[in-house]
Amino acid sequence: MDKFFSPKSVAVFGASRSLEKPGRVVVQNLLHSGFSGKIYPVNPHADEIANLEVFTSETVPKADLGVFVIPAKIVPKNLEIVADRLKSALVISGGFGESGNSELDTRLLEISKKYDLRIWGPNCLGLMNTHQNFNLTFLPTSRLPMPPKGGVSILSQSGATVASVLDWAGTIQLGISKVASYGNQLDVSDYEILDYYQKDKETSVIGFYVEGLKEGKKLLEVAREGKKPVIVLKAGKTGSGVRAAKSHTGALAGNFEVFKGISSQLKWGMACGPEEFLLSLKARNIWQSHIKNVGVVTCGGGFGVMVSDSLEELGMGLSNFSEKTTESLKKAFPQRVSIKNPVDLTGDATPEMFGTAIDALMSDGSVDAIVVVLLMQLPKLNSEIIDILQNYSDSEKPVVVVSPPGAYASGINKLITDLPVVSSPEKAAGVLRVIR
Amino acid sequence: MDKFFSPKSVAVFGASRSLEKPGRVVVQNLLHSGFSGKIYPVNPHADEIANLEVFTSETVPKADLGVFVIPAKIVPKNLEIVADRLKSALVISGGFGESGNSELDTRLLEISKKYDLRIWGPNCLGLMNTHQNFNLTFLPTSRLPMPPKGGVSILSQSGATVASVLDWAGTIQLGISKVASYGNQLDVSDYEILDYYQKDKETSVIGFYVEGLKEGKKLLEVAREGKKPVIVLKAGKTGSGVRAAKSHTGALAGNFEVFKGISSQLKWGMACGPEEFLLSLKARNIWQSHIKNVGVVTCGGGFGVMVSDSLEELGMGLSNFSEKTTESLKKAFPQRVSIKNPVDLTGDATPEMFGTAIDALMSDGSVDAIVVVLLMQLPKLNSEIIDILQNYSDSEKPVVVVSPPGAYASGINKLITDLPVVSSPEKAAGVLRVIR
Repeated sequence: MDKFFSPKSVAVFGASRSLEKPGRVVVQNLLHSGFSGKIYPVNPHADEIANLEVFTSETVPKADLGVFVIPAKIVPKNLEIVADRLKSALVISGGFGESGNSELDTRLLEISKKYDLRIWGPNCLGLMNTHQNFNLTFLPTSRLPMPPKGGVSILSQSGATVASVLDWAGTIQLGISKVASYGNQLDVSDYEILDYYQKDKETSVIGFYVEGLKEGKKLLEVAREGKKPVIVLKAGKTGSGVRAAKSHTGALAGNFEVFKGISSQLKWGMACGPEEFLLSLKARNIWQSHIKNVGVVTCGGGFGVMVSDSLEELGMGLSNFSEKTTESLKKAFPQRVSIKNPVDLTGDATPEMFGTAIDALMSDGSVDAIVVVLLMQLPKLNSEIIDILQNYSDSEKPVVVVSPPGAYASGINKLITDLPVVSSPEKAAGVLRVIR
Repeated sequence: MDKFFSPKSVAVFGASRSLEKPGRVVVQNLLHSGFSGKIYPVNPHADEIANLEVFTSETVPKADLGVFVIPAKIVPKNLEIVADRLKSALVISGGFGESGNSELDTRLLEISKKYDLRIWGPNCLGLMNTHQNFNLTFLPTSRLPMPPKGGVSILSQSGATVASVLDWAGTIQLGISKVASYGNQLDVSDYEILDYYQKDKETSVIGFYVEGLKEGKKLLEVAREGKKPVIVLKAGKTGSGVRAAKSHTGALAGNFEVFKGISSQLKWGMACGPEEFLLSLKARNIWQSHIKNVGVVTCGGGFGVMVSDSLEELGMGLSNFSEKTTESLKKAFPQRVSIKNPVDLTGDATPEMFGTAIDALMSDGSVDAIVVVLLMQLPKLNSEIIDILQNYSDSEKPVVVVSPPGAYASGINKLITDLPVVSSPEKAAGVLRVIR
């Protein structure tokens, strides 16, 4: 699997002189991501591409990985020509079994067997390994930039889904380690990538977008051995979804209740949509603790009520603060502050008051996680809140910030990079549900 | 009620020389919003404020509206001095019944009765009437700008909630007509404001944030006569929420199931959080149609599956396209496009293809609403999609756009101002559920 994620040399079949062609974008992405290995563009009709020497399938040197961005029908022929010079092959091109051309699948599998060559794909976006500055995808970085480096690794059959999710990850400063879009799983399968992530030292949390499983039993075996937290975004939960999944990836989404049961056994978190998926990955990457009762600190009573509702609706409760906490809150704040849970600092809330209240809840044993509501419209809140909150990114207990967007608020929210920030109360409860 | 929303003259008690003081912010907001009426700052210790002549309670001229931003305990005394020169009074200050000072409430009510003077508040944010350029709130516009003008009017007991919601409204280009934060409802009550909105020519859709009702029966009477769509954001749904609401506004949130039943009778839409509230108001302000079956156009299969799941989970279905639609889609698109519902234009989707597919669904009688999934990472999508989509803002059927945020996507999303744009599949289904 290392030959896919950390190759020392990559041959790109379908490298083009035209900057827009996917094969050329692959070359550009390798160059611009800072990949330190060798790049061999393969194109029978060009001498030089991006200042690199160009080869043909016949002349290309030995390489750890061959990437194919050429029409499906000529992939097998070219693959067979170079098969004994490659250690692994990744086929980005679509137009195989998923388009009814199953004879191409058969050819690829024959070559894989004959040359003992693992084949990734076909019909996929590719992969990324941020810690190796390795961007092996065919989408231009103007559309899909490399996300920030971090500990979250993602696997997904669907290329467009993972592209969208990754781009989004950048906007919430979610640190990514590895990304795998594995497409048709003709040879390399979901459970092998999961296994690799589970053993990978640069991966601390795994995100898994799944419609259907290729071999459920094997995945389950692999998953049972894993010790890292996994968060799943499962599509194909309802009749409509299952039918749509069938026409998308041809996957048999299976019975969702069965999948849910297995996930629950494995203690996998289940996100209800891409936003919750990403925010939960962000939270889970920081905190591993379990959550039953939550403390809420707000500066607006209404949002405190809505957080309370959402927590209870999702099966969590509000902590009953200890006497010590109650005493310390009473001592710290003027009478207008409501010191029950949710703690309501009211419209005169200052950044310091938030710090004081969060500290008190942090040291209360009845509090497993803290939701902080910021309404940046209030006159005494300012950018000092950023540092005060960022301090809790190495706290023992999860801290999720609810801060709705707004003229002034949106600028502040972007700078609270080390904590999960959500816009709406029910989302905070959603994140805590997934990671609880 | 016109004296509150469209006064010709406003006296501001508590106008200050200091720019940070709430009383001064009220004066600044009136000046900068473009209010064309007279402004009388009232302050016994200043001669001139913001180039305006300053009065005392004894000398201030007759005014349609007196606004009080002075300490609670001196409000009754000052109000009584000017009561016969005012047509209405709005008390922003807190510190009345909600802080245990019910004797101040009694005094205000006596004055109201004695002088036949309606009193708004106390303990509120104030109000806005965008069509009169009238911003009567105490939060600086740097924190809470006037939202764009439009047809949505909002009422809320909670000031901080409405401030946050309004600021957010601006970021999604939700056109606002009137905003009312009515606080303690000592005299002017929720149902009177609802009634006013229902009859107001500049209001087409009403948004109602509610924890508890002052007089449920009266509100029900008023609501039964209303013909405009109402969308409710109800807080205090669960045991935890009800308790939190009680300590927030002192409201008895009552039994949520009862409230839900009433809302259902009244055909009020119920939003599950502030984000859904705002996006549904935006959608409902454009479309009044009813929704049972939905057509989906996507460029990513995974997102199509997730939209399908969410629709079914929320009680809606995917349309079965007519033969005519199926034929026209088959003719229009290459074979790789999946022409069943969801229509999957796949990774080569162009803006034109989206237009063609949406047009086909628009003219299909089985389709009540359309969800469009844009994944702007795809190489052939560009800014042409903006105009193509904006065209449907006067279409007969609702069009909700799912476009996740990203490096390139976020810029595009901001420019699709005339349609509801959501980031995640489940949110599109949520909006359609609320307005169905």
